Amino acid sequence: MTTVAFIGLGIMGGPMAGHLVNAGFDVVGYNRSQAKVDALVAAGGKGATSIADAVREADVVAIMVPDSPDVRQVLAGSDGTDGVFQNAKPGTLIIDFSSIRPDVTTELAAQAKEQGFRLLDAPVSGGEAGAKNAALSIMVGGEKDDFDAAADVFNAVGKTVVHVGPNGAGQTVKAANQLIVAGNIQLLAEAVAFVEAYGVDTEAALKVLGGGLAGSKVLDQKGANMLGRTFNPGFRIELHHKDLGIVTSAAREAGVVIPLGAVVAQLMASAVANGDGGLDHSALLRGVLRLSGQNPDSPSDSAS
Amino acid sequence: MTTVAFIGLGIMGGPMAGHLVNAGFDVVGYNRSQAKVDALVAAGGKGATSIADAVREADVVAIMVPDSPDVRQVLAGSDGTDGVFQNAKPGTLIIDFSSIRPDVTTELAAQAKEQGFRLLDAPVSGGEAGAKNAALSIMVGGEKDDFDAAADVFNAVGKTVVHVGPNGAGQTVKAANQLIVAGNIQLLAEAVAFVEAYGVDTEAALKVLGGGLAGSKVLDQKGANMLGRTFNPGFRIELHHKDLGIVTSAAREAGVVIPLGAVVAQLMASAVANGDGGLDHSALLRGVLRLSGQNPDSPSDSAS
Repeated sequence: MTTVAFIGLGIMGGPMAGHLVNAGFDVVGYNRSQAKVDALVAAGGKGATSIADAVREADVVAIMVPDSPDVRQVLAGSDGTDGVFQNAKPGTLIIDFSSIRPDVTTELAAQAKEQGFRLLDAPVSGGEAGAKNAALSIMVGGEKDDFDAAADVFNAVGKTVVHVGPNGAGQTVKAANQLIVAGNIQLLAEAVAFVEAYGVDTEAALKVLGGGLAGSKVLDQKGANMLGRTFNPGFRIELHHKDLGIVTSAAREAGVVIPLGAVVAQLMASAVANGDGGLDHSALLRGVLRLSGQNPDSPSDSAS
Repeated sequence: MTTVAFIGLGIMGGPMAGHLVNAGFDVVGYNRSQAKVDALVAAGGKGATSIADAVREADVVAIMVPDSPDVRQVLAGSDGTDGVFQNAKPGTLIIDFSSIRPDVTTELAAQAKEQGFRLLDAPVSGGEAGAKNAALSIMVGGEKDDFDAAADVFNAVGKTVVHVGPNGAGQTVKAANQLIVAGNIQLLAEAVAFVEAYGVDTEAALKVLGGGLAGSKVLDQKGANMLGRTFNPGFRIELHHKDLGIVTSAAREAGVVIPLGAVVAQLMASAVANGDGGLDHSALLRGVLRLSGQNPDSPSDSAS
């Protein structure tokens, strides 16, 4: 049986580790807060009290943590002895599901190779619902052989799994994903504020918009949040803000000019500055209402 | 048998009139260029040589023309004698499928009512493919009774048909639709230019983006245009430019601030200024390439 060490059992990593248990993998989980480890053990996995313990016997190390420095620390360790690189078996396949900077992924993949490991960057899209339903989109960068070797792991947690290029390519596509998603949310928010201002039946409007060329996953999944002014995460604005930092700086590096990406990055920053960082990214609507002189805490007319 | 006069047999109106023939309506078509009328006659409809001739015996008058002044002229006439208002039977139901200014629709609906007619604003989304496949989304403003009376006509040409409010509401929702579509296209264009710059497998990237929260009708229908640099309309940039003029001025009237809408309206204007007005709106990619110092006429690396 293949043993998978799973580092990071949060909103995304927790359900993903559970799906691996259900698919027959021997899963050893590690998380800084013990409660998440206990939940995995209750679901049929094993718990570890350190990264070193988790990865020692693993064939595959899966990582799902928030940001570039977190992945760096999981791999290289905090003191040079307690990371994956110092404790995993030679040849172990490392799958980083986290969304981080493409250049950091490329650097970490090179380090992994030097030390005899194989690394795939495999960021996901589909959110909490995608994680719970094993329906994630997974954009994978790295060697094709390693991608093929990881097929059973990917298929246990994802629905659309695609190899998009060498190391870093997965993160690049994820950055593009976050650009599109942020912008599509902001556009939907502007459209909602617009039709509300004209007293249109907003539920009917979203229905018909969803049936035409304006239709999108964002409209299907976030429209009701906006009409009802309910913004429980979901995917937090502070994390999307981090991701837009990645995409704007990566676009700048490449000399690609992204006007809407730049503006929505500013609007996401404004949401954080206004204290909305802990809300779902659909709360970009609150920023449109603020800009338009409306109270973002008032219910919409259509909801009242 | 219900007689429908159909004014405007272009890319959208032509196939819509054909579906009405197939649904059993007695369709009399008028178009400024005779070739379009001949095509309708070949498909089983009748031809008229003037608006007056077309509408004289009609129970329903359907209109599909490019812009606000065109609808005004069809209804009120060019010389005060040759429009729908002067020649149609009292009580005729007028269905305006055109996308025009909401305030003009409201004004024309009031004029229609004064003269004993009923008018629905019923702009559509779904493009040429939606028109050909009778799969349009139709956003309808006007009296509920008139909406119900028009059900057979709507169902012959559309799939998602929704009454969204009083006269003008259909045009308001269409304006919101055009805001979302333009923005979603621009965001996809920025994402495509971004992943191309990093040498990612762009076809694989679009596949995995489409499977996650970035998925949209725009991505499904316009992604291949962008990768292949093929921008035959489809929906022309000059028409979308007209629509963004409607949405930005209507938002301004309502005091709703739409930052991404404003930027994409400028980018659409730039596309017109650069001679791309006759291309499909997916050619917004050419603007991203120009802004990024690339030759928009070069094939993409992935296509070469």
